[in-house]
Amino acid sequence: MLAHGGGGTLTNSLVRDLFAPAFNNEVLDDLMDGAVFKLNGSRLAFSTDAYVVNPVIFPGGTIGDLAVNGTVNDLAMCGARPVHLSAAFVLEEGFSMETLRLIVTSMSEAAAAAGISVVAGDTKVVERGKGDGVYITTAGIGIIEDWLEIRPDNAAVGDVVIVSGLIGAHGIAVLSVREGLEFGTTIRSDTAPLYGLVRAMIGATREVYVLRDPTRGGVATALNEIARSSSIGILLEEQAIPVPPEVNAACEILGLDPLYVANEGILIALVPKREADGVLAAMHAHPLGRNAAVIGKVIDRPPGVVMMKTRVGGTRIIDMLSGEQLPRIC
Amino acid sequence: MLAHGGGGTLTNSLVRDLFAPAFNNEVLDDLMDGAVFKLNGSRLAFSTDAYVVNPVIFPGGTIGDLAVNGTVNDLAMCGARPVHLSAAFVLEEGFSMETLRLIVTSMSEAAAAAGISVVAGDTKVVERGKGDGVYITTAGIGIIEDWLEIRPDNAAVGDVVIVSGLIGAHGIAVLSVREGLEFGTTIRSDTAPLYGLVRAMIGATREVYVLRDPTRGGVATALNEIARSSSIGILLEEQAIPVPPEVNAACEILGLDPLYVANEGILIALVPKREADGVLAAMHAHPLGRNAAVIGKVIDRPPGVVMMKTRVGGTRIIDMLSGEQLPRIC
Repeated sequence: MLAHGGGGTLTNSLVRDLFAPAFNNEVLDDLMDGAVFKLNGSRLAFSTDAYVVNPVIFPGGTIGDLAVNGTVNDLAMCGARPVHLSAAFVLEEGFSMETLRLIVTSMSEAAAAAGISVVAGDTKVVERGKGDGVYITTAGIGIIEDWLEIRPDNAAVGDVVIVSGLIGAHGIAVLSVREGLEFGTTIRSDTAPLYGLVRAMIGATREVYVLRDPTRGGVATALNEIARSSSIGILLEEQAIPVPPEVNAACEILGLDPLYVANEGILIALVPKREADGVLAAMHAHPLGRNAAVIGKVIDRPPGVVMMKTRVGGTRIIDMLSGEQLPRIC
Repeated sequence: MLAHGGGGTLTNSLVRDLFAPAFNNEVLDDLMDGAVFKLNGSRLAFSTDAYVVNPVIFPGGTIGDLAVNGTVNDLAMCGARPVHLSAAFVLEEGFSMETLRLIVTSMSEAAAAAGISVVAGDTKVVERGKGDGVYITTAGIGIIEDWLEIRPDNAAVGDVVIVSGLIGAHGIAVLSVREGLEFGTTIRSDTAPLYGLVRAMIGATREVYVLRDPTRGGVATALNEIARSSSIGILLEEQAIPVPPEVNAACEILGLDPLYVANEGILIALVPKREADGVLAAMHAHPLGRNAAVIGKVIDRPPGVVMMKTRVGGTRIIDMLSGEQLPRIC
């Protein structure tokens, strides 16, 4: 089903029931955004993502820069400096060479901005009706400092939850052009490489324990995964969550919840409360962290559950969806 | 066009005119099967391939073990010991979970046989009619000994051309099941991991200068690429080229030339003539090299051209095709 690719509970069951047992090994079992391992004494991160976003060009980005930034960010969420990238293209017969050139140019620019080199690639072409323009799979290698210890199961009671910026722009940007919707102002994808921001944060404190980029499934899904990995509870403050008014308006029209909408240039960090001010100051000084805010905290129970104090004073559970609200968003 | 993915001159022009200028860097410019670079003092190889073979199950293999062995072999052709692999799946909505399980199991077995760990992955699902069952992209990381110097532009006059086994089985195996052809005996794909064979060869001599696995476009295309990279001529002996009789028979019926048919467990090596006997002996002692044979030699001109002395005594040019004789063979 489409939902098996949506990043929600169905994707998780595919990973836990099929892939993880088959490829059983210590590194994979960590189930992080990227694999982290030692190779000849160096601590490396390695990550891959397939991109099937529809349409391939959208306000603020293309499938090309998304494919670069997405893998760069998976590495960055392991605390790794991105170094080398591979890119494999599955093209549908008849796909416009001009559009391909545009996509490749945007990849090249994104790679330069992220400081990563595209060093390996492959191209396959399938018949008309066996693809959808172009699918791109990138894989990336990054280097991690020895002292860094970032893991999704590192969250502890007393940590605060920080989000780096305004949420929901990527999903709404893609959806609006796909569905031909107009919201007065154009909402642009937030796609961006996050390693610079991560470096600023770990420059402020070594106690950044959990990092995650809330892509498919949005902030809600990422926080649920952290809560489950660390067996802790998370309590969000609805009024603290930064949602741009135009994303809020679009979500209301479309019946979507911005907490579940995909982001491509946003990160979530869990840091000890005493380090929060220092980390926030470092984030605010970075162009991608200007709107960073504390949106909640880690509590002891119920473990694995994300709750939210709403604007009207109630409390509700923020659950994981079975799939993505919007298919083919990345 | 389909031929842009066929591995022939159209694929080459896509790489040289579009990808190489956009992703301009020293490592990519080598245009090897994999990228080779130093990282924190270690010499690594990094490679990616997208697999779109149709059908996904064929005699002797599946898209899954093909995707493992193909990337393992790209690393091995750089002289690299395969260490870590990533795998990204693009599934078509409605694809059978049972077939997926079979494919994943075959990947797991292939990874174990090749000594590589699958440490990172991703899954996306696209709507019916936007894919074809499953496409898999793998990327791999390997380690290269410091003293090894394997490059496609290293061929020199006096080298002999060795092929590791009987050619043409993979392409014919896939085609026969796709087209529902029967040839009396079932021709099985030769898909296999080649690093063990490479290690046996470099154990016999350090002077293995060129390695290539003749996949898309077959032996003819691989040799043309070597001839162009090294600006040398290659003269083949038709009667020395090991083609299984059943592949020959199938090729005759289908109007194909076995020299252009894809292989997935065969390598070509160029070694100095004086080392040929030692390398051949090492190859013959390895299960994947039992039928290894010298099939030609490097000559000084015309540079970039592959010629063949035919069985009847004539000489003809073995040119590169614009695409693959058979689309979606890997």
